[in-house]
Amino acid sequence: MLASLASMSAMFAFHIHKTDKAARLGELITLHGPVDTPAFMPVGTQATVKAMRPTDLRASGTGIILANTYHLMLRPGAERIAKLGGLHRFINWPHPILTDSGGFQVMSLSRLREIGETGVTFRSHLDGATVVLTPERAVEIQALLGADVSMQLDECIKLPATPHELQRSMRLSLVWAERSRRAFETEPPGRALFGIVQGGDDPRLRVDSSLALVDIGFDGYAIGGLAVGEPQHVMLAMIDAVAPVLPHACPRYLMGVGTPDDILGAVARGIDMFDCVMPTRNGRHGVAFTRFGTINLKNARHAEDPRPVDADSTCLAARDYSRAYLHHLIKANEILGAMLLTEINLHYYQALMRQIRAAIAHRQFSDFCQSTRDNWARGESAAL
Amino acid sequence: MLASLASMSAMFAFHIHKTDKAARLGELITLHGPVDTPAFMPVGTQATVKAMRPTDLRASGTGIILANTYHLMLRPGAERIAKLGGLHRFINWPHPILTDSGGFQVMSLSRLREIGETGVTFRSHLDGATVVLTPERAVEIQALLGADVSMQLDECIKLPATPHELQRSMRLSLVWAERSRRAFETEPPGRALFGIVQGGDDPRLRVDSSLALVDIGFDGYAIGGLAVGEPQHVMLAMIDAVAPVLPHACPRYLMGVGTPDDILGAVARGIDMFDCVMPTRNGRHGVAFTRFGTINLKNARHAEDPRPVDADSTCLAARDYSRAYLHHLIKANEILGAMLLTEINLHYYQALMRQIRAAIAHRQFSDFCQSTRDNWARGESAAL
Repeated sequence: MLASLASMSAMFAFHIHKTDKAARLGELITLHGPVDTPAFMPVGTQATVKAMRPTDLRASGTGIILANTYHLMLRPGAERIAKLGGLHRFINWPHPILTDSGGFQVMSLSRLREIGETGVTFRSHLDGATVVLTPERAVEIQALLGADVSMQLDECIKLPATPHELQRSMRLSLVWAERSRRAFETEPPGRALFGIVQGGDDPRLRVDSSLALVDIGFDGYAIGGLAVGEPQHVMLAMIDAVAPVLPHACPRYLMGVGTPDDILGAVARGIDMFDCVMPTRNGRHGVAFTRFGTINLKNARHAEDPRPVDADSTCLAARDYSRAYLHHLIKANEILGAMLLTEINLHYYQALMRQIRAAIAHRQFSDFCQSTRDNWARGESAAL
Repeated sequence: MLASLASMSAMFAFHIHKTDKAARLGELITLHGPVDTPAFMPVGTQATVKAMRPTDLRASGTGIILANTYHLMLRPGAERIAKLGGLHRFINWPHPILTDSGGFQVMSLSRLREIGETGVTFRSHLDGATVVLTPERAVEIQALLGADVSMQLDECIKLPATPHELQRSMRLSLVWAERSRRAFETEPPGRALFGIVQGGDDPRLRVDSSLALVDIGFDGYAIGGLAVGEPQHVMLAMIDAVAPVLPHACPRYLMGVGTPDDILGAVARGIDMFDCVMPTRNGRHGVAFTRFGTINLKNARHAEDPRPVDADSTCLAARDYSRAYLHHLIKANEILGAMLLTEINLHYYQALMRQIRAAIAHRQFSDFCQSTRDNWARGESAAL
C-alpha cells in the first residue's frame, strides 16, 4: 500500500487549479519536482542554456528547461550522458527537463537526410557521420538522458506545402507516434511522453491528427510544425482548431513559440507550455525584452544612455548596468554582454509567465493582456 | 582641520603590516577602498573581465582589477566613459581599479606605429584611425577613466634587443616618466601614479632606470617589459637587481606576471602586485588551474571523468560540475565553459594570494612555497 502510494506520488501528473475562459492555471508534477503552468522553457541546446549558470537560470524563475535530443545524441552522446548519471546530473540542473525528439533539428540542420517509414537517416552536422533516428531510438535516447517529459519523433515540414505533402507528413508522424508510444511502455515509469499534432496550416488535418493522437493516448499533447515563419493569425487559428479536440485534463505544449505576444495569444486559447530560443538568442545579439517592448542595444543611440534597461525589474542585470555599457559590450562582442542580456530576457519572460499565472488566478487574464500590450506599445523610452 | 583630515584619509597610501624575509604583507589604501597585498589583478581588457559578472569577480576574492587604457581609449572612448560617470560606474565595479598606460598594447596590437620623443602615433586596430598617445594624454585618459592607480606611459620593446636599443628605450621611458609625473600633478588628488622600470634583461640598465624613477618620485614602482617570453630565471634576476633599489615603503608591481609559480618567486623577492590574463584566457581555452597543477579539459581523456575539478575548492564551479561536462562545454565552444573555467581559475589565483598573505603573516612563506610546489608536482589525478 505504502509502496503503491510512493509509486503514485512519483508519477507524472497535471493538475488544473483555475481557469479563466480558455486560459488555464495549472501544475505539472514530475520526478524532479513541480512546474507551474503556463510555463516557459528556456532552450538548452548543447547541454547548457547558453550563457546561464543553472543557479542563475533557477533564479530567473525557470521551472523547466528544454534540451535538444539531436545535439546531445551527437555530442557528447546519450549513452555517455547516461553513464555519467543522466542529463540532470551532467548539467547540474536538478529540476524538470523536457527533451524534444530530435526530429526538428534533423530536418533543419543535417545534410543528406532521408525520411522513410522506418525513420530518418542523416549525416551529423558535426562530423558527417551517418546516423539513424527511428521513433524507438528517439524514445530510447530520451530515456537515457532521463527526461521528465519526452516527445515522440515527428516530421516537421516547411510551410507552404501542398495538401498532399501535408497529409503524407501528418500520417507519417502518426505512425511514428504509435511506435513511440509502444516503445515508451518498456521504459522506467514516472516519466511522460507527449504526442505531437501536425498538419501544417490546414485546420482539418490538425483536427484529424489530434483525434488520432488522443486515440493512441499520451500524457500530454504538443502542437508542432508552427512558428516556422507563418503569420501569427495562422498559428492562432491552428490552436483554435486543435485545443477543443485535446483532452482538457492533459497539458498542451506549443512548440518553438514565441514572442511575448504569441504567448499571450496562445495562453488565451488554452496552451500550458512553451519553448523558444528567442530570449536567449536575441539577447546574445543585443536585443533586450522589457515591459515596454524590445530594445536593440546594438543601436548607436544607446552609446551614451546612462539609463538601465528597466529600473523596476526584478533582474539585477536590468537595473545595475547602463544601456551605454550593454551597447559597448555587445559592440565589443564581449561574453558579459551575452550573459547580461540573456539574464535580462529570461527574467522578463519568466516574470511575464508569473504575471500570466496570477492574472488567470484572479480571472483577469483578458485585462492583463490589454494592459501588457498597452505597455509594449508605449515603447522603450518609457522604460526608466 | 577636519577637511584636512578627510582629505588625508582619501589619499592613496600603502602600509606594510608584516614581512617574511623579502616577502611583504601589506595593504593599498585607495579612494575605492583597501586592497590586501600581495594582490593579483584580473585583467579587464574591454571594460569587462571576460565572462565574469562584477559580483562574481568580487566573490572570487578579487580586490582590484586592471583595465586596459589602449582598448578603452579606442572604444568606447575615455571622454565617453567620463561623461557616464567614470569607469567604476560604467562597469559596475565600485572597488579599486588600476589602469595601464596603453603603451604595451600600442606596441603589440596596433599597426604602423611611430615612436618619437613626443609620444607614439599609431593606427587603431579597430578602424585604422590615426591616434596619438603622449605621456600627458595617457595620464589624462587614466584620469578621465577615474583610475585609482595610473601608470606612466612607457615603451615596451621585444627581447632580445641590442644593448644600444635597450638603453635608448629605457632612456625614452624615463623622459616619459618625468612628463607623466608632471602631468599627473594637475589631476585631482587622492589617486596614485606608478613609474615603470625598464631595461630589458640587463640588470645594470634596470638599476639605472630604478634610481632615476625614484629620483622623480612615484607612489609606486612597476617592473615592466618582462613576461614577454624570457626564461623565468631572467625575470627573477631582474627583480633581484631592482627590488633593493626601490623604496621599501612603496608598492611594487610586476606587470603581466604570471604563472602561480612566477608569483611565488616574485613575492619571495618583495613584489606586492601582479596582473595577468593567464587565469582568464587559459580558462576560456579549457585549462583549469588547481592545487595539483593545471588540467587541460580539452583533452579527450576527460570526456567520461565524473570527478569535479577540485572537490575541496571554495569555488562552486570547481565542485559542482564534472570534468566530463567541462570537457563537453569547451569542445562545444559554449559560453558556459568560458564562464565556469574563468571562475575556477580566478578563485584559484585569489585563494593562492590569500594563502600567500597568511603564510607571510605567520612567517612561513618559504614552507608554504615548498608545500605548494609539492602539490603542483603531484599532478591533477590527485585532485579529488
